Order: sequence, then C-alpha cells, then structure tokens
Amino acid sequence: MKIAGEKRLVIVSGRAHPELAASIAAELDTEVVPTDARTFANGELYARYDESVRGCDAFVIQSHTAPINQWLMEQLIMVDALKRASAKRITVVSPFYPYGRQDKKNRGREPISARLVADLYAAAGANRIMSVDLHAAQIQGFFDGPVDHLFAMPVLLEHIQNTVDTSNLTVVSPDMGRVRVADIWSDKLGVPLAIIHKRRDPRVPNQVSVHEIVGDVRGRVCLLVDDLIDTGRTIAAGAAALKANGAVGVIVAATHAVFSDPASTLLANPDIDSVIVTDTLPLNESQRFERLTVLPIAPLIARAIHEVFDDGSVTSMFDGAA
Amino acid sequence: MKIAGEKRLVIVSGRAHPELAASIAAELDTEVVPTDARTFANGELYARYDESVRGCDAFVIQSHTAPINQWLMEQLIMVDALKRASAKRITVVSPFYPYGRQDKKNRGREPISARLVADLYAAAGANRIMSVDLHAAQIQGFFDGPVDHLFAMPVLLEHIQNTVDTSNLTVVSPDMGRVRVADIWSDKLGVPLAIIHKRRDPRVPNQVSVHEIVGDVRGRVCLLVDDLIDTGRTIAAGAAALKANGAVGVIVAATHAVFSDPASTLLANPDIDSVIVTDTLPLNESQRFERLTVLPIAPLIARAIHEVFDDGSVTSMFDGAA
Amino acid sequence: MKIAGEKRLVIVSGRAHPELAASIAAELDTEVVPTDARTFANGELYARYDESVRGCDAFVIQSHTAPINQWLMEQLIMVDALKRASAKRITVVSPFYPYGRQDKKNRGREPISARLVADLYAAAGANRIMSVDLHAAQIQGFFDGPVDHLFAMPVLLEHIQNTVDTSNLTVVSPDMGRVRVADIWSDKLGVPLAIIHKRRDPRVPNQVSVHEIVGDVRGRVCLLVDDLIDTGRTIAAGAAALKANGAVGVIVAATHAVFSDPASTLLANPDIDSVIVTDTLPLNESQRFERLTVLPIAPLIARAIHEVFDDGSVTSMFDGAA
Amino acid sequence: MKIAGEKRLVIVSGRAHPELAASIAAELDTEVVPTDARTFANGELYARYDESVRGCDAFVIQSHTAPINQWLMEQLIMVDALKRASAKRITVVSPFYPYGRQDKKNRGREPISARLVADLYAAAGANRIMSVDLHAAQIQGFFDGPVDHLFAMPVLLEHIQNTVDTSNLTVVSPDMGRVRVADIWSDKLGVPLAIIHKRRDPRVPNQVSVHEIVGDVRGRVCLLVDDLIDTGRTIAAGAAALKANGAVGVIVAATHAVFSDPASTLLANPDIDSVIVTDTLPLNESQRFERLTVLPIAPLIARAIHEVFDDGSVTSMFDGAA
Amino acid sequence: MKIAGEKRLVIVSGRAHPELAASIAAELDTEVVPTDARTFANGELYARYDESVRGCDAFVIQSHTAPINQWLMEQLIMVDALKRASAKRITVVSPFYPYGRQDKKNRGREPISARLVADLYAAAGANRIMSVDLHAAQIQGFFDGPVDHLFAMPVLLEHIQNTVDTSNLTVVSPDMGRVRVADIWSDKLGVPLAIIHKRRDPRVPNQVSVHEIVGDVRGRVCLLVDDLIDTGRTIAAGAAALKANGAVGVIVAATHAVFSDPASTLLANPDIDSVIVTDTLPLNESQRFERLTVLPIAPLIARAIHEVFDDGSVTSMFDGAA
Amino acid sequence: MKIAGEKRLVIVSGRAHPELAASIAAELDTEVVPTDARTFANGELYARYDESVRGCDAFVIQSHTAPINQWLMEQLIMVDALKRASAKRITVVSPFYPYGRQDKKNRGREPISARLVADLYAAAGANRIMSVDLHAAQIQGFFDGPVDHLFAMPVLLEHIQNTVDTSNLTVVSPDMGRVRVADIWSDKLGVPLAIIHKRRDPRVPNQVSVHEIVGDVRGRVCLLVDDLIDTGRTIAAGAAALKANGAVGVIVAATHAVFSDPASTLLANPDIDSVIVTDTLPLNESQRFERLTVLPIAPLIARAIHEVFDDGSVTSMFDGAA
Repeated sequence: MKIAGEKRLVIVSGRAHPELAASIAAELDTEVVPTDARTFANGELYARYDESVRGCDAFVIQSHTAPINQWLMEQLIMVDALKRASAKRITVVSPFYPYGRQDKKNRGREPISARLVADLYAAAGANRIMSVDLHAAQIQGFFDGPVDHLFAMPVLLEHIQNTVDTSNLTVVSPDMGRVRVADIWSDKLGVPLAIIHKRRDPRVPNQVSVHEIVGDVRGRVCLLVDDLIDTGRTIAAGAAALKANGAVGVIVAATHAVFSDPASTLLANPDIDSVIVTDTLPLNESQRFERLTVLPIAPLIARAIHEVFDDGSVTSMFDGAA
Repeated sequence: MKIAGEKRLVIVSGRAHPELAASIAAELDTEVVPTDARTFANGELYARYDESVRGCDAFVIQSHTAPINQWLMEQLIMVDALKRASAKRITVVSPFYPYGRQDKKNRGREPISARLVADLYAAAGANRIMSVDLHAAQIQGFFDGPVDHLFAMPVLLEHIQNTVDTSNLTVVSPDMGRVRVADIWSDKLGVPLAIIHKRRDPRVPNQVSVHEIVGDVRGRVCLLVDDLIDTGRTIAAGAAALKANGAVGVIVAATHAVFSDPASTLLANPDIDSVIVTDTLPLNESQRFERLTVLPIAPLIARAIHEVFDDGSVTSMFDGAA
Repeated sequence: MKIAGEKRLVIVSGRAHPELAASIAAELDTEVVPTDARTFANGELYARYDESVRGCDAFVIQSHTAPINQWLMEQLIMVDALKRASAKRITVVSPFYPYGRQDKKNRGREPISARLVADLYAAAGANRIMSVDLHAAQIQGFFDGPVDHLFAMPVLLEHIQNTVDTSNLTVVSPDMGRVRVADIWSDKLGVPLAIIHKRRDPRVPNQVSVHEIVGDVRGRVCLLVDDLIDTGRTIAAGAAALKANGAVGVIVAATHAVFSDPASTLLANPDIDSVIVTDTLPLNESQRFERLTVLPIAPLIARAIHEVFDDGSVTSMFDGAA
Repeated sequence: MKIAGEKRLVIVSGRAHPELAASIAAELDTEVVPTDARTFANGELYARYDESVRGCDAFVIQSHTAPINQWLMEQLIMVDALKRASAKRITVVSPFYPYGRQDKKNRGREPISARLVADLYAAAGANRIMSVDLHAAQIQGFFDGPVDHLFAMPVLLEHIQNTVDTSNLTVVSPDMGRVRVADIWSDKLGVPLAIIHKRRDPRVPNQVSVHEIVGDVRGRVCLLVDDLIDTGRTIAAGAAALKANGAVGVIVAATHAVFSDPASTLLANPDIDSVIVTDTLPLNESQRFERLTVLPIAPLIARAIHEVFDDGSVTSMFDGAA
Repeated sequence: MKIAGEKRLVIVSGRAHPELAASIAAELDTEVVPTDARTFANGELYARYDESVRGCDAFVIQSHTAPINQWLMEQLIMVDALKRASAKRITVVSPFYPYGRQDKKNRGREPISARLVADLYAAAGANRIMSVDLHAAQIQGFFDGPVDHLFAMPVLLEHIQNTVDTSNLTVVSPDMGRVRVADIWSDKLGVPLAIIHKRRDPRVPNQVSVHEIVGDVRGRVCLLVDDLIDTGRTIAAGAAALKANGAVGVIVAATHAVFSDPASTLLANPDIDSVIVTDTLPLNESQRFERLTVLPIAPLIARAIHEVFDDGSVTSMFDGAA
Repeated sequence: MKIAGEKRLVIVSGRAHPELAASIAAELDTEVVPTDARTFANGELYARYDESVRGCDAFVIQSHTAPINQWLMEQLIMVDALKRASAKRITVVSPFYPYGRQDKKNRGREPISARLVADLYAAAGANRIMSVDLHAAQIQGFFDGPVDHLFAMPVLLEHIQNTVDTSNLTVVSPDMGRVRVADIWSDKLGVPLAIIHKRRDPRVPNQVSVHEIVGDVRGRVCLLVDDLIDTGRTIAAGAAALKANGAVGVIVAATHAVFSDPASTLLANPDIDSVIVTDTLPLNESQRFERLTVLPIAPLIARAIHEVFDDGSVTSMFDGAA
C-alpha cells in the first residue's frame, strides 16, 4: 500500500509570549495549534495539543523571559508531548537562548548551563534548535544536530539606516567582549568604531573601574550595540562615559530586551537618546518607556521557519552567514 | 604507580529546603559542602562548589516545593557541575519526586512528565535517584539505573502507634486510587479498612459527585492515609463525609505536605482532629497550624544514603521491600 | 535530482499468531509480506523478508503467547532485519505487551521486566510501539518514543450491549487493583459497581483469604471485568464468591486470553455463564470451551495502523483517550 | 566522610546449567548468590537475588542451551535486576555465545542476530562479556566494551596430548570455514593438516555434494576439530569420508556440545572412535554416549573471572592471545 | 500548512579520488555538489558546501587511499557539516572500507579498528554505510544501521569471461583465509579450485614458510583471486609458487588496488600475465603498469545509490546476496 | 569474596611527541607503558600495549602536530584498545586540542570540527579530556564529561618575570579576538595594555588592512601574547606595526608553537627580540631559531595528572580558575 508523502507544518507556543508565536504564524498564513496549557496548584505544568500532530514538522516557540526556568520546563514538556504524539520532526524555537551566558567554566566546579540546556532539549526529544543572536556562536556546537542561528542585525540595521543620519555616527562596543559584533556593525554602516574599556583604576584600591574610551567620540553620535540588555548597568555606565567624553548623542541597539530591574529606569535616563530592541522577549507596559523602539522579530523567524520547512536555505537569508 | 582506593561521601544541597540537607548531613556526622548558589537578575541560576568534589560519591538533595521548576533546574545545574568536576557517582535525592502525578498519558497528545524528569536527570549526568513514596511505583522504571525508593510508612506508623489508641481505629483510603496503600496500613496496624468512593450522583446531572463510604466507620476513629496532600480538597471532603457517616474522629497521615493554597485552611477545619506529615517538603509558618505534626524524614534518608555509600542494603531497611 | 516522496506500508508477522496479522492485513486491503522464518536445531531463530522493505513504514506484528520468550526474540530479530534492510520506520505491534505485569519493583533486587522489554525493542531498532490494554498505563513511559495505546473496551462493550440485558447488570472488579477499569465500565454502561476484596481472615492464621463483596450483587447479573485472564484462578474464585452472595449470573469480559493451565477448566465451570475475550492472543481448540466468545481485535488494530500510516489520529478512535 | 574502597565478587547463575556456575564458584572458593528464579504460568520469567548485590562486581553465568531464547531472556532479566540493585559492574558470562553463527548478512534482508544479542546485553545493562571460543572472532567487535574471549584449546589439547599417540595423528578441518582453527591445532600438536572440502558434484545436478579430502589421511588417525557440534551431520559425514579414504581412526574434538537431535546418535556411530567436548553447555543422560568425554570448563572460566576481578591479565592465560 | 513531500539526491565527494565521484554522478545524470575543501597550514581540514543541502538524501563519497587517516577525517568532517546543515539522511560511501583488516583482536590489548571506524562514522552523524567487498562480512555488524554491501564480482567476472578462455582455467585462493571467496569464483566460472597453503617448513627452523599448492595446477591457467592487493607480496609469492608447480599462466583479480610500495614492481613481474582490479581506489601513473587492467566501479555504485535513493532493492542487484 | 580496592596509574603515549610523555612520566616517578605502535604499508595504524592495563586509570598523551589527522587517529585507536582491554577510566591528554579553531559555524554549511573531535573521543571510549589553553573556553562544553582545562600562563609568566624588566613593559593583544587573554596578562604583570586593530583602510579598496595600535607603545617594550602561533603572519605583522609605532622592543609569548611554514622564518626577523613558547607541540631543529625559548609543559601536566589520579584539585593549581 502506497500513498504520496506530504509535509505538514505545525506551530505551537508556550505561554511566555504567545503574541510572538501568533505573529509568526500570521506571517506564515497559518495558525498556532491550540494547546491546553495549565499550571497546577503546586506549580507543576501541563500541556496537551487540541489537534492531532501526528507526522507533522513541529516548531515549539517559547520566549525565555522570567520566570525563565518555568518557561524552559514548559517548552520541554511540550516537546515530550509532541514526541509521544508521533510528531515527525521537532524544532525548538528559542529566540533568546536560555542560560546562553553560562557557556563555559570560568572557574573550576562550575556548570556549563548553556550546554545543559542543549542536552535537556535533546533529552526531551528536540531534533533541531532555532535561535536568534546566540551570546556565543560556539553554543551551536553544544547541540548534536542542526542549529539555525538567525541574526537580528538586518532588522536593527534597516531601522537605524532609515532613522539615523549615519554621517556623524560612531559604533561603540560597550566592553571588550563585544568588539567583534561592533566591528561588523561598523563595517555594515561604513562608520568608525570605538570601544569602552572597563579597567581597574590603578590609583584606587578595591576594584573601582574606570570607563576608558578607545577611539574618537567627541562630537559624534554613538551607537552602542550589544546582543542583550539585562539590568542595563553596563549600557547606562557606557552611555555616561560617552557623554562625559564629548559624545553628542547616544543610541542603543540590542537584540534581546531582557530588561531585568532596574533596566527600564536606567535606560530612560537623559544620557540615552533612544533604545532600539526586538521583541524576542515580551515587554510589559512597565518595562517600556518613551524613547524605546521595539522592532518585530516575527518576520525574520517566520521566514526562517519557512525555509526550514520547505528545505530552502536559511544561509541565503544572511548572505552566507548562519 | 598504585594507591589504595578510597571513597568519599559528599552531600550538597539546593536552596529549596536547606534545613533538610543539614539535618541529613548531621545524622551522617558530616557537613553539607558549601555551595555558591545564586539567582541572576533575569532568573537564571548558578551554582559552584567551594571545595573539590573530584572522585566523590555525591548526593544532591533538593526539595521540590514551589517554585518547583526553578528548584528542579537548580538541581540539574548542580548535577552538571558535579559531572564536569569529576564526581565519581551522582545520586539525585528528591524526597518528593517532581511531576510524579503525571506518570502516564490519560489522553492522547499529553506528555509523560514524570518520565521526562527522569530523562532530564540522566541528561544532566545523574547516575542514581533516591526518592520517598513515589506516587506510582512504576516511576522507578522511568529511569535507566538504580532508584532507591524509600518508604515513610515506618516513620508515620511509629508515631501513630505511639500516640493513637488503635483499638478503635479504622484505616480509610480517600479514593479508589489509593486503596493499595491503605490496605498495607490496615495490615500493619491490624485494624479494619474502609474506602471513600467518589461517584457521580445519578439523580443530579453535570458531574456532581457523592462521597460514598465503603466499610464501617460509625463510632470509629478514622485514619485517612495518602502519599501526598496538595490543595487538601480531597482530604477535607473525605473527612467531612466520614464525620457525616458517624466517625468520631479523623486523623490524616501523608508523606508529602505539598500544601498548596488553600490546604492549610482546609486541613485546619474541625472535622479533622490531627494531621501528620513528614518534612520532605518545607513548610513555612503560614502553612502550619495547631493540629499539624511534622515528623523529620532526615533520619530515614540519612540511613539510606549511608547504606548506598557503604554498599550496604537499603532493602533491609524495609523488610525486603524497596 | 528530485523525486516525489512516497510512503509504503509493510505488514510483517511473527509465527506466534499469523492469523491475526493476516486479518489485520485483510482489513487494510493489503497482504502480509512473506517472510522466511525458521527455527534451527538448537532453537535459534531466523527471519528474512522475501521482498524489499527499503524505505517502508513497517509494522511487526507478534502475539506474545507461550513460549513467550521465543516469540519476543523472534520479534526482536525481525526488527533487526528491518533496520538493516533500511526500513524507514519500524512499529512493534504487540497486542498483549509481554512482561507487562512486572512493571515495578515490589521488593528490592527485582527486575522491572516491562521496562526491559521496552529497552530491548529500542535496542533492536523499533521506533514505535502499538499495544492493546497495557496492564499499567505507565508502561507507555517506559519507552522513549511514541506508544499507541489502544483500548479493546469499545469492542467488548458493543458485544455486551448487543447481547446482555443491562437493566439488571452490575459491573464487578475482581480485586482492588482493577477498580479503575471497572469504574469506567460502570460509567459507560450506566450500571452499578461492586468490588471483590480479598483479605486475610483474622480468625484463621496463615494467610487464608476471604472474598468480601463490596456493593450489592444479590439478584444481579454480574459483569466481571479484567484486562487479562491468565490461570483463571482469580476470576473463578470471584465468580464463586459472587454466586455465594446471591448473584444470579456471572459474565466475564477481558481483553487478553492468556489462558494458562488450568484456565479453560476453571472458566468452564457452572458459576460462570459466559466469557468474552478478544483474540489478541491465539487460542487453540483445547483452550476453547462452549461458553467462550472470542471477538476479533483485527479491525481495531487495522484502523490504528491506518491512522498511524496516514498521519491521522489514533486519539480520535477513543474520544480523546489514547 | 571517607572509607577505604573494597571490591566484592558476586557470582549469580541462570537456571540453564547451574552445575557449571557452582563449579566455577567452587574453583573461586566462593558460592553462587542464591536467587529466587521462577517461571510464571504463561512462561514469563522472574529473578530476585536473596542477598544485597550493591556495589559488587557481578558475573552472570548462563549456558545457552535449548530453550535458548528463554535462557537468554532470563540472563537479560538478571542483568536488569543487578543494574537496578546498584551492582557496580556487570559481566555477562556466556560460555557458548547465543546466535554466534548469525554473525553477518549472507543475503539481503537478514538480521545479524549475533550483533543483536550484543545490543540486548548492553540494553539490559551489561558492562562486559566473557565467552569461550566465539564462532567468529569478529563478534568481539559487536560489543561496545570489553569482551574476554577465552579459548578452550588448552583444555582440549592437554587431554589429547595425554591420551592420544600423536605420532600418527593428522588434524582435519571438517570444512573450508574452519581451516584456520585446524591450522592452529596442527601447529600446536606438530602434526600434519588435512581439509575436507564439500563441493557440488558436477556430474550430478541439484546440489549433491561430495566430500573431497585435501591432504593425506590414509593410515592416519584423524583429529577432526571444530568450535561446536550441533546436529553432528557435518562431523559424521566427515568421519565417514575420512574412513572411506583410508583413515584408521577418527577422534573428534570440539568446545561446544550443542548436540541437537540427532547428534548423539550420529556421533555414536562406529566411524568415530571418540568425541571430546567441554561442558560449556549441559548434557543430559540421553545426550551422552560411551565414547564421549566431557572436560570441565569451570577451571578456565574461574581463572578468567579471577583475573578480571583482580585486575590481572586474561591475555597472559593464553600466551598473548585473548 | 501542507506541501507535497519530495526527495532530493545530493552527491558530495572528498578530495581523495574526485574522479570516482564525478563518474558516479555522471552515471546518475547529476553532478557532484561543489564543495569548498581546504587543508590549513597545520594540516587541519575544512569543508563547506556551496549549495543548500537542507532536507537532502546525501551520499558522501571518499576513497581511502594514502594518506588514509586524512581522507577518513575529511569524510567525517563532511558528514558533520551535512548533519548541521539539516541533511535528511547521510550515507557514507567508502568503496574500500578503511581499517577493514583490523576486524578482531588477534591478541589481547589490541584495538578493533574496523569497529572504531563504524563508531566514528556514527558519531559524526552518518545514518548508513555503503561499501564494496568488505574484508570480512561481519563488519556489517559493526554498524548500528543499514550497510549496503556491494560486490565487485559481477564486474570482474564479466571481464574475465569476455577475455579469458575458461576451459583451461583454475581458480586459486592465495591463502587459507580467502578460500570462501575463491570457492564462489570457482562456482560462478564452473572451473576447478586450488589453494595455496603457506606453512612452516618443519625442516627449517624460524618460521620459514613454503607455499604448498593444494589441488591441480599443472598445465592450467590460474586465476588468483583476492579482495585486495596491498604490497603485492602474497600475490607475487603465490604466482611464483604456481609457476613452479607447472601453471602455464597466472591471472590476478582483486577488487581493491591498494598498491602500497612495492606492489606495482612485484605485480609487473613475468610470473604474472595480467592483473585485473577496479578503481575503488585511485591509481597514479607510477602505480600503473602494462599488464594492469582497471575496471570502473562507478556504474555499480551509481546503480546502488539509485536503488537506495529510490527505495528500490540493492539485494536484487546481486541475486539475493547483499 | 572481597579484596581491597586499588588504583593504578597508566601513562601511554602516541608517537607524535614521545619525549613529552616521557617527561611527564618522569615527573610522576613512573614510566610510559611500552606500546607496540606501527604504521602499515597503506598508512593504517596499529597499537597494542605490552602490559596489562586492566582496571587502570589511563592517560593517553598525544601531541597534535602535523600530520595532525594521523596522530588524532592514532590516539583514537589507542583509546579503543584501552577500552576493550578493560581500562577503568580513560583520559585523553591533548595539550594542543586539535581543530580547536573550528569551534563554530562562521557561515552556513560549515562543520564544527572542534565538537566533532570531542564526539570522536567519546565514541572511541574516552571518559575525560585534559588540554592546555583551549582556543575558546567553550570547547569544554563540547564534551559530555569532565574537561581539565590547564593554563600555561603560570609557566610563561614566571619566565617573563624572571627574565624581563617589567617596569617598561606593555602587554599587547595581536587582534581583537585575543583581548581578554591580554587583559589577564596585563593584570597579572601590573603593566599597561595595548591592542592591535586590523581594519580595512577606507582609502584603499579591496580589503587592504592597516594595523592600528590602540594604546600607547612608544618607547615601550611590548609583550605580544597569544594562545598559539601557526604561520606567524599575524605576530610578525603585529611586531612590525609595534616597531613602526615606536616600540623599543617586542617579546612574543604563546602556549602552542604550531609553527607551520614559514613561521620560523617570520619569527626570526629583527623586529622580534625573543619568542617564548611551551613544548605542547614538538619542534624539530629546523623549526627552532636563536631567539626562541621553549619552556617545558611536562611539570604542569604531570601535576594535573597527579591531582586527577589522586582525587585532588586541579582548580587549586590555578587559584580557582580551571
């Protein structure tokens, strides 16, 4: 008995940021498969799909915002349910990869939690991972399978190019660890690069650090770029240092708006003219402020899902990278 | 080059219920290895051991109380850190097994989260599991390795025998699913058994249920036994039904005091004369009430850890069971 | 080079109960792929497919009757041969799951053979399992992949409804462990429930047990339900107890007719008016008796295979369960 | 807390050939750990150890005689029970490796059952395998771990040297596939080699084969050597051919006395002067005959177990081989 | 969202023998996917595919000639890149299986490198293996998945039948280990068989061996057959022995022309009339000589790839074998 | 039967750099276990241990110099042989981790060869990895087990402190990617930091880059630090730029002296006053030059092996790091 093969796309979503999944599905002209998701009295989670997912190509979207461990566990439970319900292929879509900053042992007896997360995804039954702007590209190597690594830069870049006069712009890396990313920005925009170097002040004991500016920022509009903004302290201190060194404007661009307290307060300060992020993570009203622009990431993810589902090329979306 | 082999016991603990780990360590005449455990601004967790754990026989104690997913993740991270720090053998000690009630698919497209938890432990690097009174004994089969399944019954039983006149006692199962456990209690105490049967009232539409008492409770003191008490609704309704059927007293005994809201309120009602639980899960002041007795589980777990470490017999602790 | 994808269904069968596989294939309008299966002089088994199975969606049907270890091994060998012959997906169809009753450690140092069987299937190369009425639903969690758990109840129920006057019927659970199943029967038929409680007679030492009837059976026709009948001792003793307590008729319904000696003799006794089973296991002439009805399970399994092959829904066959 | 490390040897045995395990244990000055092994009514097996095996170095001895699938399953169940009871290391001792002759695909769509057996051992939890005279040495490569491959040749050789006048002896390979083994015998004994070549008679259609003797056997006493004797047909036909070609005596030596029907009858025929085997497999009275000598294999296995347990050298037992 | 399934064939090639891959692709009317393959200054390798391979059925062709470890590593790297680029299925095509002769432990403490190679392929992400004339058929069992074992005999045989008068031909096995292969040749050609038996000369100490001819070669043209020719010493010595025993011609046929030094010199000697091999391994000009015929293996491999891709039957290519 | 546990250290070495292993063994007051290692005519490798390694704690030392793939394969084969010879624990000691620079996908369809290497080690049977100065610390996360990451900095630092006047010293990072390492050096030495920034010269098309010096180097002695020196081009260009910018001296310090052509020529140029490396990789005479200092790494590795073998602390060797 023979029948023609067929592929079916299924999008499911955890409860952390359902609007993102809905937007992605809308971009794909489909709908998120309704899921009965619950939290029991003692905090245990539950998820059940309302429709058959047998044989499908499933994408499990979750945003890893606080409470991050709960949303990770929900995603794992959803993958387990898909596996046991005979989904053909399961792709975890985690726009902000959880625990991405714990990607190595800085000292003995530490975990490598970013690797652990990859192992948990695999244990639950995930075949593939899709993520945006991993904190370290090496995280791709933590998973024994395909990782579609998307870059938000085209989204942020287009917005900057459309809204900022680049003739007086300088790209600034907020610390030594982000220089490579800033370098690419500088290249793409064709503008100079500067670096903020935090170092101990030799005149003051006990680890007081000064923010040294490497490169010329006087009279320039500075574009501070980073992959994520968590508490905002690094960015706010950097912006202050730039202003103190004569910068005439500071624009901040980052992919992941983690915005833990007191990020919104710090970012809303007068040293910073505007902040541009994407919605890989949800932002509630209290986290938003006037000079914040949130760009939608759904079109990018939707296009990548389409390429994956249709055996196209994700690499072609980024001129060979990814 | 040859040296004599040596075994070293290491007890580490998550932050959910550190008093339990401390008590277990004290019973073993040792100390919990100090751990630098933290929660970052966005909720990501971190743990690092302050002393070398190389080559040790490690036991990672965690109580899975709310927020249960956070404490599970912390335990997984601690296992990962032990694995990467060259611990020789890693035993997860989860007195209350998380997600134990989700041990099968009741309907299609559901997860089997109790199996998922076993897989996550294995993925992180756990070699063994120790737990107390699993919701279903089959959960042992979810892990591909040794599971030391401890029973709190000796602890609870001894207390009952010391404090209750058993001559007028009847053991009662709160529902059909717990009859086997009640049967063992009835046997051990040498007292009669009764069962509460929840069923739909055929005279009333829409799933109104009546609590039918199978067996004789009139004039008896009833010992309601269960493995866990979550919201307390089943127990409170059962106690009311027992009183309505002529019981002169109701004592409740359970291993795991989950006590999700509104458990403490429901259990403190006059139908219930006393509640006896163990401290597999922590109880804060607001969860405690006058007629609640919390028995220490640490001696039991400590003895089991000792038997495991010393290649003795856990089975012998329970007359062949376990 | 591109070609259209295509799915091909292949049904193969072990030698334990080839009629069942033939019936399933007939229901599916296909044929069992001929297999050269042999037993060598020393009992070693051999199987080779006479036709290419490359790229197919294979279902390996075996009935686990005596000699049960031989038929299990034959099924494992058949899976190995399929794997090495490039079958695309392999589903083990074991209507009666072997070793299903050994699903937990009742005492220390016991195996969990039902988990072992799941591991053996996986080691041989099985991707999926299909079974009917598992002894414990938790066995689904023993396999790290999809388990299609079918229920024979619709088959048995329809027969009862067509042949028995349910107005005077009471569903009876033969022991405490089967109450939940009996409860569902009671619900589906809309008739009362009773339970047989085996317990030690306190007046007689050394474990003599009495069969206590919980619920009202006097003047009633009793429907004793169980998942399997092995030696028939529990059922025969239960039927005798029911009659002794005034039941006017006893009908027995079970999914799996294991019928080890002396089941047929015990079941053919006058206390039992009729026995209804399915043919998940083969019954030879000497195992059959006058008041035995054997219902075909092939239509149910065939429909499930069709749903699996065609990415339909097995869940929908059972109103959401499975 | 630290204690000195200690190693404990545990010998357990399946029920196929308990005398062999007892002999091995006696050689090691220890005893087989008593095991509660049972066969349930429907043929399902069960095993439970009567003593703690926690932390031990366990050797699970089973002889794979008929019913071979049952004894294999029993061994797997025993391994599972050891694993779940926290044995530290588990070595499967299978003197006659089951399914060893099915070590490759001779045709498409065949299983490789010897590899499957290795996978089943691993799935159950075995860490190591010990066996005697594997049918093909490549089987060692089927297991992802240590395989202690023992050779019975020293045992058989010593007997031949003590009982046979080798001055008139010729070693004979019963077919082309066993030439290498015969070559080693010829070397060790310092006597000539001959080969029996079965081939199709070109004058007779339909695969009638003639037994051609390659080498000189006239007037010689022939020592026919093989790894196993199953039905005895090859050996009996070979002996007849040797006698027909002028051999004055035929001695048969083999490690594994499978002796499936009608082996004993065929081997007891007058063409064969004596048959020498070991007791890797049990032989009942009806399988024994006058000119059969059964040499004990227990001393060899016991010594190997001792070397394994004590981190000595199994290789040294065989002058570098093994 | 549903789309029709589609299968896409992708052929990629390592740099060891690109002509072979090109020929195979040409036979399949397709092209090798261009790959950017490089060797860095310190010998580390690199490979990147110039086109998307997402969802494809990939065949990674490599010839394991010297430097063999480099070409094996290149193939593993290519498999890793395919896996991470979301290829759907990856088949390693290694016409000459590397390390195939190290298929067992001849002595203690040796590796089983042929098994190791299978494990490395699996670790890199290969789902299937295709190879030609494995040194031992048991190597198929070293891989936990499908192995398509092709036979070059039809190619060699057709050439012999077309170019040699078989009426005076005798097939000769160069040593005891290759008798089975020679036996098949003898059968297929309908000609007699002889064997060269290397053995120690009892008159000369220290392992000097004589080449004894078993069977009649006087006045015959001898066809020496082997799976591979490495240094050519065995073949050259065999040819000399055949000539010394009265053979009137010697033809050599082998699948794999390893041709390590001084093979070409040895094979070009006057005792050997012609040598027939296939191009599973590349031969440079200095390795070729006048009487050497190299037959193309590409048509055979191409047909097998086609059968695999199209879910046809590889077995049917060889009358049931394979 | 019980015996005291014992641990035995075994050091074995590949053939790439046997002097290093000998030095390490000497530091440990032991000897390298003699190994019969060979290269066959076609390049296939072989290794066999001359002494029993049963139950030992084995360390397999190999230096990954050219031909790097051969030495990697030799190490894998040695691990396989240890695993099959019942070594208790196997640690791969790769002072220079092979393929460490290919630690992420820079573009689509690339391999992550550093992860592949970790997988190959695991597939062969390695339980642990020890390495020095990984190119990226994230590589630790590529292995599912303990990685002892050693730092050569103490060795290099002590030499610098003993031989260089640090009062006029500036630490220089040769490019943006190495800034973090240079930062640590700057901290440890208490001297200023400078960075060489390669960037495109906007005035010249086609990617001509200029070496911009960030920080003050005029009149300073510059210490250029890197993890490895391959062809030496980056270092030589950096040194030239430093001199061009007024540096009065250039000292180069690196852990791994890969020294691919033309490294030695480039490094011996007058811009560079001295080069200090360790002997993690062997250097032949033609690779050495006058101003090169090679510091022994054996003491560091020996101490780490001792800590691992003796369950001490590797972390303590580096003040908490590692």
